[in-house]
Amino acid sequence: MVKHAFGANYREVDVGEIVMLARDKPFVLECGVEISDFPLAYQTYGTLNAKRNNAILICHALSGDQYVTGTHPVTGKPGWWDRMVGPGKPIDTNRFFVICANVIGSCMGSFGPKETNPATGKPYGLSFPFITMGDIVRAQALLIDHLGVEKLFCAIGGSMGGMQVLEWATRFPERVFSVAPIATASRQSAQNIAFHEIGRQAIMADPDWCDGDYLLHRKYPSKGLAVARMAAHVTYLSEAMLQQKFGRSLQNREKVTYGFDADFSIESYLRHQGMSFVERFDANSYLYLTRAASYFDLTQGGSKTLPEVFAGTKLRFCLVSFSSDWLYSSIESRNLVRALNAVAANVSFTEIETDKGHDSFLLEVPEFDATIRGFINGSALLYGVG
Amino acid sequence: MVKHAFGANYREVDVGEIVMLARDKPFVLECGVEISDFPLAYQTYGTLNAKRNNAILICHALSGDQYVTGTHPVTGKPGWWDRMVGPGKPIDTNRFFVICANVIGSCMGSFGPKETNPATGKPYGLSFPFITMGDIVRAQALLIDHLGVEKLFCAIGGSMGGMQVLEWATRFPERVFSVAPIATASRQSAQNIAFHEIGRQAIMADPDWCDGDYLLHRKYPSKGLAVARMAAHVTYLSEAMLQQKFGRSLQNREKVTYGFDADFSIESYLRHQGMSFVERFDANSYLYLTRAASYFDLTQGGSKTLPEVFAGTKLRFCLVSFSSDWLYSSIESRNLVRALNAVAANVSFTEIETDKGHDSFLLEVPEFDATIRGFINGSALLYGVG
Repeated sequence: MVKHAFGANYREVDVGEIVMLARDKPFVLECGVEISDFPLAYQTYGTLNAKRNNAILICHALSGDQYVTGTHPVTGKPGWWDRMVGPGKPIDTNRFFVICANVIGSCMGSFGPKETNPATGKPYGLSFPFITMGDIVRAQALLIDHLGVEKLFCAIGGSMGGMQVLEWATRFPERVFSVAPIATASRQSAQNIAFHEIGRQAIMADPDWCDGDYLLHRKYPSKGLAVARMAAHVTYLSEAMLQQKFGRSLQNREKVTYGFDADFSIESYLRHQGMSFVERFDANSYLYLTRAASYFDLTQGGSKTLPEVFAGTKLRFCLVSFSSDWLYSSIESRNLVRALNAVAANVSFTEIETDKGHDSFLLEVPEFDATIRGFINGSALLYGVG
Repeated sequence: MVKHAFGANYREVDVGEIVMLARDKPFVLECGVEISDFPLAYQTYGTLNAKRNNAILICHALSGDQYVTGTHPVTGKPGWWDRMVGPGKPIDTNRFFVICANVIGSCMGSFGPKETNPATGKPYGLSFPFITMGDIVRAQALLIDHLGVEKLFCAIGGSMGGMQVLEWATRFPERVFSVAPIATASRQSAQNIAFHEIGRQAIMADPDWCDGDYLLHRKYPSKGLAVARMAAHVTYLSEAMLQQKFGRSLQNREKVTYGFDADFSIESYLRHQGMSFVERFDANSYLYLTRAASYFDLTQGGSKTLPEVFAGTKLRFCLVSFSSDWLYSSIESRNLVRALNAVAANVSFTEIETDKGHDSFLLEVPEFDATIRGFINGSALLYGVG
């Protein structure tokens, strides 16, 4: 177990299990840089069975981490998918061996820009190499090698986690039985590239970013990262939900103050979202991971069609979208379903009616829980596991 | 004519006509502050007829100004509604006397935070009083007094301009014959309050903002204002248009560079939008005007219903929305139409099918031009003018 300096306040936290990967053989990133002996932080829940065929890999989203359930070591709050994962829950840890790794490029112990570059003894900062969704899942594949899992029963994840699931389906089709890409797309759209660019510009505009060397200068681009998070957070919710939850209600006041304080509850809420994010996330990781998302494109710049990407797939697919998600709308999932149908893949698709927006996959949406439970149980019967 | 220091580069530009208002009697802002002898910069096009009944007031949007047509003195580009306004155009300056005033709070010569506070001899900065949409249109009413116009033939504007038009319809129903609020809403929604809060936080996070005193320190929060503009600009376009116009195309390169440069065309475009805005707009004006927009609510915090707001109106209304506008969606216009119908108002509503998003009212959308032309011509017949 390794302790890591973390976030805006430089606390040291125990991030749990860490494995050093690529010790014997270098790992070549898609950008061409070779890395070796790099850390991957992960958590597991439940027990790997004797046949080693009950492993479910959960892929986390942009700001997520390996703390799927249990208490998060930085925030002290429950893990991000506590609702979904645990004994008797849709992803039942009594039956399945659940693995979640902090993606490379992130900041909860895995190889990322805040880690120390052994060559210089300083944090990588912008000397960190660029990583892709492909690199992220190839590192996860090394982890499951390490854990003795030849083939995953299932890979599942939402948003950027869904991109990783799609990479698993296309890069390692022989190493996974079923996949559930949720609220995601086959490639990052222009609008979503734009949203991420805004976030990066907000961070890089903060002089405390120090050209990426803030850790070296004991500074932190808190304001820039908070703005980036606020801008992103709005895209995770739906207009209807914002209107219903906040509307024009005022924050602990009866009248507007004719000032720039957070007069409206929605303003106060957003500021809180920005500030709390700064406490738990690394600004350079935000840059690198949004870059990886913008590079994500299953068709490799149109060099293949989407049906060609999935041609011959034997996997069982479960796609889910949420009606009010405007970041990765149902249209994106339907495009994937169309391509999968064109190659006669085994695919189910559920568009869930909800006003909770993109973040629905993290929120209380009973129909979603039931969909995942059904897919996992049905797949388990077919696979003869659990 | 007065010359004004302007924008990030402190150029002095001739902003055209300026009238000093409230010379005899103080003007009480809704925030309670009294102002007097304040400047309002404006342009007129065409000629006021002998009956003084052919005046059309155009209300500009957040980042607009009085330069509706002709050459803009700062950018050197055509005015923002050059398409719509001019001889023979839908708003025909051969027939109508067109007035457009820079809104108070803005930065093209009207009373705004970059103007010099006579009491201190320094730019107002954050000592500028808070203004509302109501204050903006009451100042416009003083301008039309000055121009000798008792009653406007029409008030027209899109987005924040549409809010002003709605204020005209409800505050001065006896002083306007017809109104065209375009791509707007009866109140700022939670989501739109959120977007504006993000923009303000981006500006205020920039240390060169200097707590609003950047002019005094010869600095400018260029990075913060650019981020604010980038974040706003995405909301002005539709996802479909972004995908069609930019998609995932790369900016003057064949491959991604594995870097934080603007690899994608959409990134380059957004950066350009941010940077060019900084050259022409004042950061504090952006704060004040977005604040005014967030305070906009025809129902005054729900103290009246929307039908009560319009009860007894004799005005001729023309509402227009654009199908792909997600900032002020058609739902908002329909809510207004429903309220107007409930009080038997004379209202037409057109939802125009286009993928050009909120900015449609500024872009080449022939059906929109035809709608406005038809409304103006029909109203002119009824009013016996032009």
